[in-house]
Amino acid sequence: MLRLGQLAAAGRLLPAGPRLGPPRPSGGRVSLSRSRPPAPVGDRGFLARQVRAAAGSSGGGRSPALKTPKGTRDHPPAHVALRDRLLAAVVTCFKRHGAAAIDTPVLELRETLTGKYGEDTKLIYELQDQGGELLALRYDLTVPFARYLAMNKITNMKRYHIAKVYRRDNPATTRGRYREFYQCDFDIAGQFDPMIPDAECLKIVHEILSDLQLGDFIIKVNDRRILNGVFAVCGIPESKFITTCSTVDKLDKMPWEEVRSEMVGEKGLSPEAADHIGEYVQLHGGLDLIEQLLQDPKLSQNKLAKEGLGDMKLLFEYLTLFGITGKISFDLSLARGLDYYTGVIFEAVLLQPENDHVEEPVSVGSVAGGGRYDGLVGMFDPKGRKVPCVGVSIGIERIFSILEQRVKAEMLYKKDPKLLKQLQYCEDTGIPLAAIIGEQELTDGVVKLRDVAIREEVDIPREKLVDEIRRRLEP
Amino acid sequence: MLRLGQLAAAGRLLPAGPRLGPPRPSGGRVSLSRSRPPAPVGDRGFLARQVRAAAGSSGGGRSPALKTPKGTRDHPPAHVALRDRLLAAVVTCFKRHGAAAIDTPVLELRETLTGKYGEDTKLIYELQDQGGELLALRYDLTVPFARYLAMNKITNMKRYHIAKVYRRDNPATTRGRYREFYQCDFDIAGQFDPMIPDAECLKIVHEILSDLQLGDFIIKVNDRRILNGVFAVCGIPESKFITTCSTVDKLDKMPWEEVRSEMVGEKGLSPEAADHIGEYVQLHGGLDLIEQLLQDPKLSQNKLAKEGLGDMKLLFEYLTLFGITGKISFDLSLARGLDYYTGVIFEAVLLQPENDHVEEPVSVGSVAGGGRYDGLVGMFDPKGRKVPCVGVSIGIERIFSILEQRVKAEMLYKKDPKLLKQLQYCEDTGIPLAAIIGEQELTDGVVKLRDVAIREEVDIPREKLVDEIRRRLEP
Repeated sequence: MLRLGQLAAAGRLLPAGPRLGPPRPSGGRVSLSRSRPPAPVGDRGFLARQVRAAAGSSGGGRSPALKTPKGTRDHPPAHVALRDRLLAAVVTCFKRHGAAAIDTPVLELRETLTGKYGEDTKLIYELQDQGGELLALRYDLTVPFARYLAMNKITNMKRYHIAKVYRRDNPATTRGRYREFYQCDFDIAGQFDPMIPDAECLKIVHEILSDLQLGDFIIKVNDRRILNGVFAVCGIPESKFITTCSTVDKLDKMPWEEVRSEMVGEKGLSPEAADHIGEYVQLHGGLDLIEQLLQDPKLSQNKLAKEGLGDMKLLFEYLTLFGITGKISFDLSLARGLDYYTGVIFEAVLLQPENDHVEEPVSVGSVAGGGRYDGLVGMFDPKGRKVPCVGVSIGIERIFSILEQRVKAEMLYKKDPKLLKQLQYCEDTGIPLAAIIGEQELTDGVVKLRDVAIREEVDIPREKLVDEIRRRLEP
Repeated sequence: MLRLGQLAAAGRLLPAGPRLGPPRPSGGRVSLSRSRPPAPVGDRGFLARQVRAAAGSSGGGRSPALKTPKGTRDHPPAHVALRDRLLAAVVTCFKRHGAAAIDTPVLELRETLTGKYGEDTKLIYELQDQGGELLALRYDLTVPFARYLAMNKITNMKRYHIAKVYRRDNPATTRGRYREFYQCDFDIAGQFDPMIPDAECLKIVHEILSDLQLGDFIIKVNDRRILNGVFAVCGIPESKFITTCSTVDKLDKMPWEEVRSEMVGEKGLSPEAADHIGEYVQLHGGLDLIEQLLQDPKLSQNKLAKEGLGDMKLLFEYLTLFGITGKISFDLSLARGLDYYTGVIFEAVLLQPENDHVEEPVSVGSVAGGGRYDGLVGMFDPKGRKVPCVGVSIGIERIFSILEQRVKAEMLYKKDPKLLKQLQYCEDTGIPLAAIIGEQELTDGVVKLRDVAIREEVDIPREKLVDEIRRRLEP
């Protein structure tokens, strides 16, 4: 994914000094290593051009608006190549774990998606009624998988599915959140010994995030039954479990005080019940916490919570055998918004921005998530026959956003560009390093590396250039 | 794509004879080589199960309809694996010709698609107005490519794009025509010497169809300017060119008499004009026909036709250098329905069903098509700047339908199936060959191959089995 091989260029060196004096003799050509974007990254260039183009078209009135729909983007060849490499790595892992690929339509009957996503149902794209069936765009790959299993009466399958899904979400393209994005799902359907498939899903997340070298990460794990047990012992009526769950799920984005006031104000819980919930959902730890909660006088009396805690203990035993507990956190604040989870749930988050040079760190949120949904297939089966399932979805789009800005290099497409203009461009756009090669540098076998911000330059032997750039761009 | 490797099975041989006598001792297991489907092929098994499931659900009232939307289908692992191999072959060819991949959203602004597809505009899926922009699903990959070029001010690009497109067409799934299907597009944008990019597109179609060994094919070639010239010399007003074009385009599906009556009855042409058009559009040939039309007293006076014929001659010269004129037919009936073509147009069709064993031959229609569209990018550019383009789309889904039923094998998933039941299943479903392996066959190193229709069986040495099955299934 590093494009440093493209850095070779020819030009004359501009000395450090006054901000922008008179242009130097032309002939310079600069390669720019960019990793300090001052504004939304990713397809920033495209966006700017879109805006210009759209503004241009509004005057003429003959051209349509020149843009992609809100929250979507085009992928130029370099994006597609990077994405294909990423997807290939994920597929390799999925296949290593014995999964086979299926594909389902982007379109589903609306009724197929109804009642599966809780509050997120409003984010489903619906197609216009043009006569015939009422359709919608798939929101994820899990519900179509459950439909597929029920339709084909399959009770045992390990499958992966890599495809685009659609959500009318508030796009945050700088954080890699789009309205159209790829999901990479791995799921295991079938009746097996407890927690073995669940442990394999966590192992897969661990393998993929390690392989891709995204930096430190943690996989939060919880169980819907434990959460529901907590709600029960805190005196919440069962009818409010799901809505309370949605509120707890916001704990990763807002402080407890705000979550508490949503519980009391919007969801109608008593302040005492909310406080009681707060004592539990702010806990996180490992086996020790599981043991502690198994001894909890109230929770240990709750059948659901006891089952969930017992399974969580078993899961941690398998994860210990896999040697991955170092990255696993049993976290009672993890709730996950979707209705269909019935047991273990998990979510992987990166622990820090991957690059200090980025002034506005890319907060990519979770990069993988999933859980157990033993009831979903039964919702489709005419006789309600259940097929236990557990699965994980890799947030490839967010990972893509991170990798995309790791080290990016560009070069002005002019045969005879002014060097000063190029350096100005670097300063304007926050590009941290400029690599400059003129005749002297060619003769000397070096590259002049300029720190754009402090305007300092140093000659680097060509064979050490890549290492030097990596070193300077490291967090 | 042959799954003959999976044919190994164990069972006892049932002698030829009475249609269905008493069941033989159980323990038989038969592998079925299927290539004579009596009914819709492809996901027939799924459809049957869908119907059953849907019927089952209508009674209960609690389950949603268990089906995919009309004209769409799921792809089980074997489909996906075959499709991936097909796509890899196509991508290899596209890359060999120097193209880079891009990706664009499935969703486009409705206005982006407006006025590009002529009568087919009614086939565009529109999304419900849920607040915000008015959106639609892409109908092809060509219009999004033109938007992409204009938006990014690219005037020179060789790109490929493999993705799903959406058409509210009347699905004919037996002919590989779906409402959601893959397109594999290769396009060349930019100003080049005449007919060289056009010739490369035809070369690519020739390479891919040859590589995939789909049987004999022909690539029909025409030019919109020639057609428009014909219309002009036949006295058709320019305002009726496009609609007349749409009618001519139906000549591959209906006889001239019907096309003529649509021209006169629906499109309001005079009977004389229609007859005059008929004299031209029923012509097809090679260089000789081009020369003949260049001498045609009327056509040679028409500027557009003369340009088109001159370019067609040049195109044939390049195709002669490429050594592929044997598969090219200059066919004046080829019109292609879409509005945006401005010059050369072409369409590849298979000449015969690829397999005599299929009683109802799979008529897959065209398997590739494309043409020159020099005005499309200009429709998006705020200043109307044109970027000449020519491209081709490979109908991978139809090719998939053909390959899919080439040789398919299945096996009953029972540990102890009755052999007679299996043979009955073969007869009921039109499976032509059954491969039977019992203890005797294992000892002898042979496989009993049964011709299901005539109930004749013969022992085949195992090492010759694949060849024998191929031979018997050949057209």
